Amino acid sequence: MNENRERVLDELLQHRDSFLSGEELSKRLSISRTAVWKHIEELRRDGYTINAVRKQGYMIKAVPSSLEVSAIHPFLETEFVGKEMYTYGEVMSTQLIAHEKAKSGAASGTVILADLQTQGKARLGRRWHSPKGTGIWMSLMVKPYLPLSAIPQLTLLTAVALVRGIHQEIGLEVQIKWPNDLLFHGKKLCGILTEVQAEADQVNYVIIGIGMNVNHQEKDFDESLSSIATSLRIEKGKKLDRNKLIAVLLKEWEILYQLYMKQGFSPIKTLWETYALSLGQQITARTVQGNYTGMAKGITDEGILLLEDEQGTIHKIYSADIETPKT
Amino acid sequence: MNENRERVLDELLQHRDSFLSGEELSKRLSISRTAVWKHIEELRRDGYTINAVRKQGYMIKAVPSSLEVSAIHPFLETEFVGKEMYTYGEVMSTQLIAHEKAKSGAASGTVILADLQTQGKARLGRRWHSPKGTGIWMSLMVKPYLPLSAIPQLTLLTAVALVRGIHQEIGLEVQIKWPNDLLFHGKKLCGILTEVQAEADQVNYVIIGIGMNVNHQEKDFDESLSSIATSLRIEKGKKLDRNKLIAVLLKEWEILYQLYMKQGFSPIKTLWETYALSLGQQITARTVQGNYTGMAKGITDEGILLLEDEQGTIHKIYSADIETPKT
Repeated sequence: MNENRERVLDELLQHRDSFLSGEELSKRLSISRTAVWKHIEELRRDGYTINAVRKQGYMIKAVPSSLEVSAIHPFLETEFVGKEMYTYGEVMSTQLIAHEKAKSGAASGTVILADLQTQGKARLGRRWHSPKGTGIWMSLMVKPYLPLSAIPQLTLLTAVALVRGIHQEIGLEVQIKWPNDLLFHGKKLCGILTEVQAEADQVNYVIIGIGMNVNHQEKDFDESLSSIATSLRIEKGKKLDRNKLIAVLLKEWEILYQLYMKQGFSPIKTLWETYALSLGQQITARTVQGNYTGMAKGITDEGILLLEDEQGTIHKIYSADIETPKT
Repeated sequence: MNENRERVLDELLQHRDSFLSGEELSKRLSISRTAVWKHIEELRRDGYTINAVRKQGYMIKAVPSSLEVSAIHPFLETEFVGKEMYTYGEVMSTQLIAHEKAKSGAASGTVILADLQTQGKARLGRRWHSPKGTGIWMSLMVKPYLPLSAIPQLTLLTAVALVRGIHQEIGLEVQIKWPNDLLFHGKKLCGILTEVQAEADQVNYVIIGIGMNVNHQEKDFDESLSSIATSLRIEKGKKLDRNKLIAVLLKEWEILYQLYMKQGFSPIKTLWETYALSLGQQITARTVQGNYTGMAKGITDEGILLLEDEQGTIHKIYSADIETPKT
């Protein structure tokens, strides 16, 4: 998009509840009022609904979703993942929709995408900041024949798939922080939330939620986030085509999933260890049962983190927040 | 209940959608019309709603639930199990209600009971025959701090608790068939269905469904069931107080759960093996991946069945239907 047009759009989006006059826009952007009018016309052609009222100015009423099944499918080379796909402008959480779809009989491999999540879910009941149109807010639902104990492995598998997909598409080398974060130079790029609905001896469905910061600019992170979060755009220095990236990530996920279902966790574990941050380093694991400090030794065949404390005792860490010393 | 009154009630229940004349009732039961009328009055006093229309007869409109929180609580000696309890006359499935309660913040230990399930759930999407007023159709919801891999242990723990509760209350020695059935002389008395909703590293809640045949008479089982199912009443030869039995079972469950949360699965495993059928015997395990025949060696520390085939290979059975040779 033309740079001035993008600035016009930004101004309109920042004043969604009030009119902004052509004169004000022309002043703020140092362009003529005719130029403002032309950009508004172009935005309308792109699918934005913009009201214009005499003596009041412009107000944006609707934004087109740039996530369209029809825009993703041309890039999608999967066998079953994403063959059933639903895109939404705004949802509370793609996870909630995925649960509904799974219960009403959606096929394994169904993908839910949204431009905006108002209550994006993160691990342990936390929220995930999911502003409009910037990220990949996605839930992938599968119905695998697996024992319950294998489910944490799917989080690790997903992390590996995303690292590989990002590298393939834009050449960035991202690292994995156990259990579910992707980092670049220590800043968070992506989180993974795996949910399961099961009987004791039968998994009904698994939903893998992916929240990836793609086209965020510095200004999209508030103060509390800017020191700990980043986006692919910030790190790569250019805006990315989310539709294409989604297709690449899903393809990479499917390849690893099929490998896993045939050969088990062993090849995934090897890849995971290649990309993992802080293996062999001192860490602190904050768990519900208390904190453990020691060396991150690796992961078990079930995907559980092994931590060796100063006394040489090995602790199995099922769930924790991991802190690494600042380097 | 007076025997003739019970027969009047049975007739009315068998004709719930049509009127039954006093004359017809008097003929069928070989009692006077005045006696019929008196029994109807008594039933009304017991809480049944029975419409009477001149020249048409009687029709039953509502049946009181004999499962009342107030009737169970006097017997209940638990610390947290059943402190939050809901009883229903008729539901599709107590499991569905338990899911709703769990999601809307019900406390760990919440119990759901129903007199009748129209779509009682059994393992692997099957149905559980749950006729009105005869059984214990119950769901127990807990929110344990456990890894996903531990969940199958809760099915085994529940089986042990029910065996012990039944023995304590009526002296019957029931056996466990892996993974989730209680049998008496080879006939099914009870099934257990454990469902879980979780994140990869955090169990949100577990729902343990219990379907126990308590006061069924032979006539309550149709032909397809009568050779494979039985009830406590049939085996014990007397009608039981469901309310008291529920309280005893919940207490026994809580004792074992608290033991398990403190000491792990090991003491539960020992008890389970004491009550288990077919350990050390030849069995066939029918699984999604194929059938395995061999000797049931025992269960692992995770609650997985170990089967040794003729070649001496040990197979881990996560989910199967088990067949034992007829003896």
